[in-house]
Amino acid sequence: MTAPSDASPSANPDNLAVQPIAIYDTTLRDGSQGEGVSFSLQDKLNIAARLAEIGIEFVEGGYPLSNEKDVAFFEQVRKLDMGKTKVCAFGMTRRRSMKAEDDPGMKALVAAQTPCCTMVGKTWDYHVTEVLRATLDENLDMIGESTAFLAKHSEVLYDAEHFFDGYRANPEYALKTLQAAASGGAKWMVLCDTNGGTLPEQITEITLAAQAALQDHDVQFGIHCHNDSELAVANSLAAVDAGATQVQGTINGIGERCGNVDLIAIIANLSLKKPNYEVLGGRSLKSLTELSRFVYETANLQWRGNQPFVGQSAFAHKGGMHVHAINKAASTYEHIDPALVGNERRILVSELSGRSNIEAVAGKHNLADDKELMGKILAEVVRLENQGYQFESATASFDLLIKRVSGKFTPHFETIKYRIVAGDRDVQSGVAFAEAIIKLKVGDTLWFDAAEGHGPVNALDAGLRKALTGAYPQLSEISLIDYKVRVVDSGCGTAASIRVNIESTDGKESWGTIGVSDNIIEASWKALVDSVEYKLHQEAKPA
Amino acid sequence: MTAPSDASPSANPDNLAVQPIAIYDTTLRDGSQGEGVSFSLQDKLNIAARLAEIGIEFVEGGYPLSNEKDVAFFEQVRKLDMGKTKVCAFGMTRRRSMKAEDDPGMKALVAAQTPCCTMVGKTWDYHVTEVLRATLDENLDMIGESTAFLAKHSEVLYDAEHFFDGYRANPEYALKTLQAAASGGAKWMVLCDTNGGTLPEQITEITLAAQAALQDHDVQFGIHCHNDSELAVANSLAAVDAGATQVQGTINGIGERCGNVDLIAIIANLSLKKPNYEVLGGRSLKSLTELSRFVYETANLQWRGNQPFVGQSAFAHKGGMHVHAINKAASTYEHIDPALVGNERRILVSELSGRSNIEAVAGKHNLADDKELMGKILAEVVRLENQGYQFESATASFDLLIKRVSGKFTPHFETIKYRIVAGDRDVQSGVAFAEAIIKLKVGDTLWFDAAEGHGPVNALDAGLRKALTGAYPQLSEISLIDYKVRVVDSGCGTAASIRVNIESTDGKESWGTIGVSDNIIEASWKALVDSVEYKLHQEAKPA
Repeated sequence: MTAPSDASPSANPDNLAVQPIAIYDTTLRDGSQGEGVSFSLQDKLNIAARLAEIGIEFVEGGYPLSNEKDVAFFEQVRKLDMGKTKVCAFGMTRRRSMKAEDDPGMKALVAAQTPCCTMVGKTWDYHVTEVLRATLDENLDMIGESTAFLAKHSEVLYDAEHFFDGYRANPEYALKTLQAAASGGAKWMVLCDTNGGTLPEQITEITLAAQAALQDHDVQFGIHCHNDSELAVANSLAAVDAGATQVQGTINGIGERCGNVDLIAIIANLSLKKPNYEVLGGRSLKSLTELSRFVYETANLQWRGNQPFVGQSAFAHKGGMHVHAINKAASTYEHIDPALVGNERRILVSELSGRSNIEAVAGKHNLADDKELMGKILAEVVRLENQGYQFESATASFDLLIKRVSGKFTPHFETIKYRIVAGDRDVQSGVAFAEAIIKLKVGDTLWFDAAEGHGPVNALDAGLRKALTGAYPQLSEISLIDYKVRVVDSGCGTAASIRVNIESTDGKESWGTIGVSDNIIEASWKALVDSVEYKLHQEAKPA
Repeated sequence: MTAPSDASPSANPDNLAVQPIAIYDTTLRDGSQGEGVSFSLQDKLNIAARLAEIGIEFVEGGYPLSNEKDVAFFEQVRKLDMGKTKVCAFGMTRRRSMKAEDDPGMKALVAAQTPCCTMVGKTWDYHVTEVLRATLDENLDMIGESTAFLAKHSEVLYDAEHFFDGYRANPEYALKTLQAAASGGAKWMVLCDTNGGTLPEQITEITLAAQAALQDHDVQFGIHCHNDSELAVANSLAAVDAGATQVQGTINGIGERCGNVDLIAIIANLSLKKPNYEVLGGRSLKSLTELSRFVYETANLQWRGNQPFVGQSAFAHKGGMHVHAINKAASTYEHIDPALVGNERRILVSELSGRSNIEAVAGKHNLADDKELMGKILAEVVRLENQGYQFESATASFDLLIKRVSGKFTPHFETIKYRIVAGDRDVQSGVAFAEAIIKLKVGDTLWFDAAEGHGPVNALDAGLRKALTGAYPQLSEISLIDYKVRVVDSGCGTAASIRVNIESTDGKESWGTIGVSDNIIEASWKALVDSVEYKLHQEAKPA
């Protein structure tokens, strides 16, 4: 990754020839509204750290009024190094008949102790009277007083819900809601196409009108689009061309209904196709593909193969042309060089994928110049990917793969046998039982042990570490923090391949491992063994 | 479906206040270039018939020079009633040193006997000299002579490959290629963004320039976009606003790399949001959702849940609001009425939102007026959702839930015990073993059986049906077609709750069931039991 430039996006943009556009990520809040998306606390912290790493300016962490997990997130994210990234807490305007300082939502925002608060308010007159059941003036008071209260504690971003629909219904009132927020001290006016139904030409016209109406206020504008008309990217770019200097969205466009705008496409289009703008402080976009896949894996969602810029198929060419011709002219069949976003060209008839992953990791192992070894590693990756392995979020397993292929792997134990017995609930205890029996060999010593668990995998995990702690007491520090299962080819019912991803921690760092098998027990065992071996190899390293 | 209006899109459009926009589908040709897409001959005929049924003006069937399947398609499609839909055969300009009438590609186009031919030619000077290895003048001759030859046999559409990139590289030459095709007698100039890298403002500018350069020719303009920048829909709409009267694309946007433009979004946006245009002769769009799913199923592709307009999540709302408010104000959270495109609103989980699901299903059970029963069902849904159940795709389990709560459920068997034993690979067989032992009671009879499987769930499935077939022989017809596992709260490692979804079939219909537990074996068992009970209850129904 290149070093961030000094051109901070919020620093006096008018003096710069190139306009910085701030990126605001709401994967952790609006993204989690997507069907099937649910993040654990650790998931949220992991994603926040990645977003800070690539230089995203604003990361919205959650809605502290809504649940305990989000409250805990704001406590724990303060311990992370977020660099220049500002963490935002999300909330709504105060309730109708309550002072701002007494409102539980306002208090929750302040308690989150974030440098920024993002507060949503109503723009559309119909929503004010019918959903909020307030008068139009009451709503203006709610916006103004809530903003003024929050502005004493942090930078305030005002999200104008249904701004474009509201403007079309009642332009005068819609603009008054922005003026109320600006007068209250909000620094950012974020225009939201909440229902995702607006067309680009309407975005342009209304964004210009909003700026004209607020010209006496010291505010900047943002845009927040949803993809219900498959126009979210074009709409966001239209708003930027009309003067917005912040784009809100989510990684991979996850979110309610058809999703939010995909920040991957926004970042890539603004950075690579619009020379008059700058994003992420001019940083390289080489980690975009990895970031996209990391978020999919963390959310336990399928990748979208044809996703622009970062999809597996985004630069995949079906055969028919001679390989030499493809190599000669490939750039003329691609709108950008895939390496710019960390993706790669794939020629579908052959199995060349994976090499850039390997090269990326190879630097760490000082293997880059060993062409023969690189070839062997590539062959092993191809073999395993054909079985259903994916190493993007299983970097510890990938690390062990490189050690194995290069002859630097020394197993710390040998599996003699493992067995699990599980079944229906015990009448007396009410617990569905699961027991694991484990037999291992460390050096010349046999270790035999058994453990119970909530299910077979939990029992295996407990049994493996119990059997090994005689030889390696330090393993008692390890615990599992995440466990994910995916059926790789779900067309064959329960006989399909099963991919298990495990995330482990020793309290200081965490690492991901993977196992694949047609048997979930075996797949889990492989991932558990890699987790333990990774930890033991890390400790065996010379300091 | 409403009857087609008399306003045929190609009939004298200039006299109409509302501009008809012709839809040109290339799912069967460009769509089949998508990764993982392969259509059989029958698939292609089925899709062509559906496209004609909804009133799409042009259906490109294939590339007759490239393979026998496409030749057979053009023979057989002539036997279908395609209504006013014109079938198009696709090909390229003649070879460099060959007369048009002798060129195999030209001959194949004529032999296809279609009312229209679509011929692609080179626009970009670099491609002419480097890929085609022809002089710029030779290429103009190839375009002109090929068009003139084809125009004697059919209506000719000229696809200008890389038009936007070519125009930016050498505008004068790019326009000459169009003039050559128009002089040869092509009726349509289709401007292609082959690499998908063009921005909407560039599309507008270049489309206007192309029309200005061709003003002395009697031609209409079309647009053909790819989605590499996630702008294909916006780009196609920009071209229409700039004067194009035909949009080329594919159903669901399937196609090479990031796909072609999704015609679903084009049709819906033009029809529902742009009152100055008309598509499909003004027909209803109520079959769009069904068409989308039909094409996914035929191509054996996963549906895209968040696809605009037709995705399963496109009108799915996550809870949090009072049911009354949702029902009252749902239209204000939706950009269009989902029924317009044949889709439906879905209210997802959360304590209060389950009621509308229940009400939707309740009609079937004649429960709508029984407020007390409705309350009990709601309470049970809330209790189970808190455990991690999701009934969206487990409608068979939901059906059984209603039966259970309303006292209409009679179990067909009682589980006495089930147990699985699984472990490492057998040294001799190389198979990771899994065995299930099952004990059930049907009436007063005990059934005890065991089965092996690829993993514990596969073994349980086999064992359950084996143990029951003595009492219920019809269960031998059932098989599992899908099996999904998700960790509901993945923050607690392997002790987290596990949700198992199963899809079963008897060869005629399929149904979904669900089980949740902290033990994957128990969760799977619950889903398997529901699958079998659902089938037996269906059969027990009075005719």
